[in-house]
Amino acid sequence: MIRRDALRWNGWGWLGESMGFSQRREAWLLEALGRELGRPLVRAAEPASLETLRLPPSKLAPEILAALRRACGEDSVRTSTLERVSHALGRSLPDLLRLREADVSVGPDAVVYPPDEGAVAAVLRVASRESLAVVPVGGGTSVVGGIEPRLAPGQAGAIALDTTRMDALLRLDEESGLATFQAGIDGPDLERSLAARGYTLGHFPQSFELSTLGGWIATRSSGQLSDRYGGIEELLVSVRVVTPEGVLRTLEVPRSATGPDLNALVLGSEGTLGVVVEATVRVRPRAEVSAVRGLLLHGFEDGLALVREARRAELPLSMVRLSDADQTALFELMRRDPARRFDPSRLALALAARCGWGRGRCVLLYGAEGARREVRRTLGRLRSLGLRRRALPIGSAPGRAWLRDRFRTPYLRDWLLDHGAAVDTLETALPWARVAEGHDRIRRALRAALERHAEGGAVMGHLSHSYPDGASLYFTLVYALDATAAVSQWQEIKREATDAVVAAGGTLSHHHGIGSDHLGWMTDEKGAVGLEALRAACRSLDPQGIMNPGKLLP
Amino acid sequence: MIRRDALRWNGWGWLGESMGFSQRREAWLLEALGRELGRPLVRAAEPASLETLRLPPSKLAPEILAALRRACGEDSVRTSTLERVSHALGRSLPDLLRLREADVSVGPDAVVYPPDEGAVAAVLRVASRESLAVVPVGGGTSVVGGIEPRLAPGQAGAIALDTTRMDALLRLDEESGLATFQAGIDGPDLERSLAARGYTLGHFPQSFELSTLGGWIATRSSGQLSDRYGGIEELLVSVRVVTPEGVLRTLEVPRSATGPDLNALVLGSEGTLGVVVEATVRVRPRAEVSAVRGLLLHGFEDGLALVREARRAELPLSMVRLSDADQTALFELMRRDPARRFDPSRLALALAARCGWGRGRCVLLYGAEGARREVRRTLGRLRSLGLRRRALPIGSAPGRAWLRDRFRTPYLRDWLLDHGAAVDTLETALPWARVAEGHDRIRRALRAALERHAEGGAVMGHLSHSYPDGASLYFTLVYALDATAAVSQWQEIKREATDAVVAAGGTLSHHHGIGSDHLGWMTDEKGAVGLEALRAACRSLDPQGIMNPGKLLP
Repeated sequence: MIRRDALRWNGWGWLGESMGFSQRREAWLLEALGRELGRPLVRAAEPASLETLRLPPSKLAPEILAALRRACGEDSVRTSTLERVSHALGRSLPDLLRLREADVSVGPDAVVYPPDEGAVAAVLRVASRESLAVVPVGGGTSVVGGIEPRLAPGQAGAIALDTTRMDALLRLDEESGLATFQAGIDGPDLERSLAARGYTLGHFPQSFELSTLGGWIATRSSGQLSDRYGGIEELLVSVRVVTPEGVLRTLEVPRSATGPDLNALVLGSEGTLGVVVEATVRVRPRAEVSAVRGLLLHGFEDGLALVREARRAELPLSMVRLSDADQTALFELMRRDPARRFDPSRLALALAARCGWGRGRCVLLYGAEGARREVRRTLGRLRSLGLRRRALPIGSAPGRAWLRDRFRTPYLRDWLLDHGAAVDTLETALPWARVAEGHDRIRRALRAALERHAEGGAVMGHLSHSYPDGASLYFTLVYALDATAAVSQWQEIKREATDAVVAAGGTLSHHHGIGSDHLGWMTDEKGAVGLEALRAACRSLDPQGIMNPGKLLP
Repeated sequence: MIRRDALRWNGWGWLGESMGFSQRREAWLLEALGRELGRPLVRAAEPASLETLRLPPSKLAPEILAALRRACGEDSVRTSTLERVSHALGRSLPDLLRLREADVSVGPDAVVYPPDEGAVAAVLRVASRESLAVVPVGGGTSVVGGIEPRLAPGQAGAIALDTTRMDALLRLDEESGLATFQAGIDGPDLERSLAARGYTLGHFPQSFELSTLGGWIATRSSGQLSDRYGGIEELLVSVRVVTPEGVLRTLEVPRSATGPDLNALVLGSEGTLGVVVEATVRVRPRAEVSAVRGLLLHGFEDGLALVREARRAELPLSMVRLSDADQTALFELMRRDPARRFDPSRLALALAARCGWGRGRCVLLYGAEGARREVRRTLGRLRSLGLRRRALPIGSAPGRAWLRDRFRTPYLRDWLLDHGAAVDTLETALPWARVAEGHDRIRRALRAALERHAEGGAVMGHLSHSYPDGASLYFTLVYALDATAAVSQWQEIKREATDAVVAAGGTLSHHHGIGSDHLGWMTDEKGAVGLEALRAACRSLDPQGIMNPGKLLP
């Protein structure tokens, strides 16, 4: 179970956890980044303390709190400031900005921790009766404004329904390779319970350590090894969802032709139709071997062609991650160790540059998992395809670094915010024929937006999550904060960034979701007719509109 | 485009096409089957002629027909008896029984063939205004009562909307491996147009030659090579659907996390929310090699374990088809050639029996497609797994026979009906842990049903469409018709069969669909809450309920 009191209330992750830079390294990095952003990065004002938090008092009358206690147990209803603020916002850049200012104008009036499906249903009955909004919260790591309570007209308050007490492995059917969990289980607990029996789900979103199975389902999450294991939609077999109108459940069968697949209605529903309480997922025997290797390519388009070719050749890769030239350059910068007089990786890069892998070079990380022989074979085949495109094998060190840091990089954001620099990310997916152009268009639009609203900044991109027909593009923006208007500065940039994604024909999100941040573009995404169908389905399960209002559906 | 006038109006497939048995072989088979059913099979009464058909006259007033002609073109509205009866029923056993009796009490009042999306929308407008039911028809091969018009209260008549004039390949994006088709294109035309450019969709349901892309989408179809290519849900990338409320469309991107996937709402919608007019699907380069091999196993459970093991080892098989002992025995019988004095396959079987593959033996066909080296490797690995389970390799002849006849076996039904014997099929899917038990339970229930309602008969099963977590089970029933009450006899058997599937925890259908035949069990399948959500989504797109009423949703 996720221990909220061990987490930062106003930043990413665990108290005491960080990127772990030495002081010397930190100073060196700040200087280098400052050069990138055209402005020195210096220690910003300390984040505000919890004591100064301006969170409005809970609006729930004692009778309502008593009813909630009857619904889910005496110790399961909490109204402390720490509990409320911990469930008030996700972990997007604007969320962090507001938390650091202790400027949280809206939060849940109570947090409930139901222990089981029956208690969830009882909470929803109280909420229906009392016209309260209910926000299901798993890990609470949304980066799209997915859990901030927004009241619909007439609603008297909001409850955050924290699912993390429901965290048991209920059944492991080894013959079918199916595991049934309570949906509040978090990533590490889930993988531990499977590993004890020799299995894995293989689902590793960046939020893995702080997010839950139910959250993955509700947001249509995708993990870093989705090339092998599939997105959560390919892992989910059946589900139970408590809605205000009763339990929605699907059958535990491998495939059906019995009308529209209701799992698909639940996947991505973002809490707007109910609370995911139980799920059966496909698990696999733990891989004998897992390996990541690197190639250095002459340019991004070379890399795109290589990844596309590998997909077409049906190489069973577990992951592919192609950084564009700017991201490659930043990673090289960040891996450099100022303390070492002789840095072999720096030497290698200098040599590579002399041999033709110079400006514009891109790193491709690729991995495979499974039986030792198969893994060796797959990695060898990708390497051969790469060599034909004049790629330079760079061994396993960059892959090991990525594996080591893959859940830790979000801590970078807080560290940069401490020094007046903002980091935001956005992502989309496109068919292969439009990936190169999309990368170019979106990157140019992001640069222009940063120019306009932050006097410049850095834009980096990478490709990950590849498919036979296309891939996801992920962008990272770094820019200097406008300390006096940080949130509105972000809003302007976000608006232009999202417009650019839509103009490039990309989807609004490959795996972050809609929340409230992408609401304004949902008609572009789904069309008016499609939105109406979704709205109707939601209304039928939640006629009063108590489930996570103001999210997903504009 | 499917040429309706070249098709049997009261049976399966093309005029003049059949299993092609010689007279001698036919007599021999009838005698053998008669022994199985415990009753001699003799030539039954001839099917009734089209002239004796009791189809009620069209209820559409001339003004309505004129409006339909304005909507979709002068020659695109047809009311001849042949057109109407060709669109009145699908091709299930009870459909054939009624057609052979020329006893069709309900059919469309007109058949329209809109040439494009605009014409489809115009037809729906006329239908909305005049309160007419609209049944989208692709190939019309439903075996679950999917296209028989059923009027909702207050509806003035029914139109069959035949999509087969919309049959163009609109775009082939070779870089992404995506093809965009008008959805009325039939299987052979679709594969031909792709083959001309070196590609394949790889979707081969048994109805392939007589069904359409739009029909596959609307019924959540699955092809015989789904182990490699996936069901239609894995092939579909984006879609356009004309609904009474406007066009529902999805984006052409490889993956999204932007709320529930609307493709999934269209897949399996069975015409109840609109007409699928266009679809973009994933295509692949045509395989260099395609091969099917056979193994003889000591028993069905041996075969199940082998297939499960192959899936767990992630062998990239294109198909797996494991017949149970009764199906294996029938196939052996049917492949025997009475004209040959020396039949090597019979000799081989006799030898196999002497060597221990006797009573209870089961045939497993398995195939692979792709690059020559990969195919050889995959087939070799499966063979090795089989040998460890004491399987006997039986070469490629049985696989070749299956490939040759895989679209032709439905003609057997008509031939058997000509001789007083009925054939029905049903299918489900189960997780591996319940496949063996499900096979046993369902088979016993089917035997008991045949005992009760047909004084016995034959029940055969096979496994096909395997998944990491389970597989589909397919059953074939052969029994002697009760000539005086053939439809009600079928209804009794069908009811007990479907009860057995539900009792075994199986899905109502792995790939046949719901139509009207499975309506009564939809609450078992989807639950009351799930059904309500589906109904709400349909109603939002079709508020008057004109789209294929009486199907899918009870």
